[in-house]
Amino acid sequence: MMISNDIEQLISMLSRLPGLGPRSARRAALSLLRQPEARMLPLAHLMERAATSVRTCSLCGNLDTIDPCHICTDSTRDGGLVCVVETVGDLWALERAGVHRGVYQVLGGTLSALAGLGPEDLNVSSLLDRIAEGGVREVILALGATVEGATTAHWLQEKLASTGVVVSRVGHGVPMGGALDVLDDGTLAAALIARRAL
Amino acid sequence: MMISNDIEQLISMLSRLPGLGPRSARRAALSLLRQPEARMLPLAHLMERAATSVRTCSLCGNLDTIDPCHICTDSTRDGGLVCVVETVGDLWALERAGVHRGVYQVLGGTLSALAGLGPEDLNVSSLLDRIAEGGVREVILALGATVEGATTAHWLQEKLASTGVVVSRVGHGVPMGGALDVLDDGTLAAALIARRAL
Ligand SMILES: [Zn+2]
Ligand SMILES: [Zn+2]
Repeated sequence: MMISNDIEQLISMLSRLPGLGPRSARRAALSLLRQPEARMLPLAHLMERAATSVRTCSLCGNLDTIDPCHICTDSTRDGGLVCVVETVGDLWALERAGVHRGVYQVLGGTLSALAGLGPEDLNVSSLLDRIAEGGVREVILALGATVEGATTAHWLQEKLASTGVVVSRVGHGVPMGGALDVLDDGTLAAALIARRAL
Repeated sequence: MMISNDIEQLISMLSRLPGLGPRSARRAALSLLRQPEARMLPLAHLMERAATSVRTCSLCGNLDTIDPCHICTDSTRDGGLVCVVETVGDLWALERAGVHRGVYQVLGGTLSALAGLGPEDLNVSSLLDRIAEGGVREVILALGATVEGATTAHWLQEKLASTGVVVSRVGHGVPMGGALDVLDDGTLAAALIARRAL
């Protein structure tokens, strides 16, 4: 294939991003190459800036340009209510939904024998510190409804049992606006178990 | 949504790339932000380099770091056989397939009343120059099997009629390894029309 090295490398690097296969990486590369000044350079400069400006919040594990992050330093949010999520992507999803007015703890993953992730790989010490300092009333576990998520929730629940804070878990079930017939069996089972009298 | 400006902008710029929706743009941004040194900076630097190193070949319209491009300057390729494609992406597809040993002419689009693209917007003058200089035996039209592709092929065929070069068109029909029942009606019709006696 007679493509210049720079173009080959651009396609190859783009195709390693999650969500982009080789085909969409080629389309993305072509679209950038067609507008070098209007699209490629601005994106390159932004990425260069973000690579140095964005850091991990030492309190919660969020990604932000300030440490502690905007959420941790927002005095209008309830610091006594900590929502534990697996990834910053989950934090973003909850922020988009605008349903949590407390703060977060981003674990950075779940316990997973397969991925070789143990308790020491999860970002929990800053949560334990915050609890030890007092002021945390409730920890909401918003982990995935997966085996790893459930294992991690169980482990955290035991770890927090002696601290006296309330530990809760988000409900699992039928998504709002979701039809039942497209859901997997596990979700349907969870929805039935989570049923409430009307 | 309490996300830093740099992160918001990164997601927004990535989501404007073809093939990336908001969801995959967020996943891509997160993956880059997690490995600023290992992934984001190298990609940023490569994009910066490519934005200045990659140019449009003045002979054929291909994108390359040299002008004329590697294909036009390759003496092992048949300069008398010119394959006309709509985009550089189509050129890449033919190069991956390794089926064309001649050179190319990249139109940069098709005639399209809807997109407001007329003959003056297509990169054809360098093809006409090459033909006028002699040495071009055959022009293969490898345009999409769309209304716009057919219109453009018809227009080019008329434009080249007086030049004396052979004008051919790639066959349309059932893709190799493709099942008939997943093809659209137009392809099936084209396949029937393009039938050959065995
Ligand atoms: Zn924070
Ligand atoms: Zn060329």
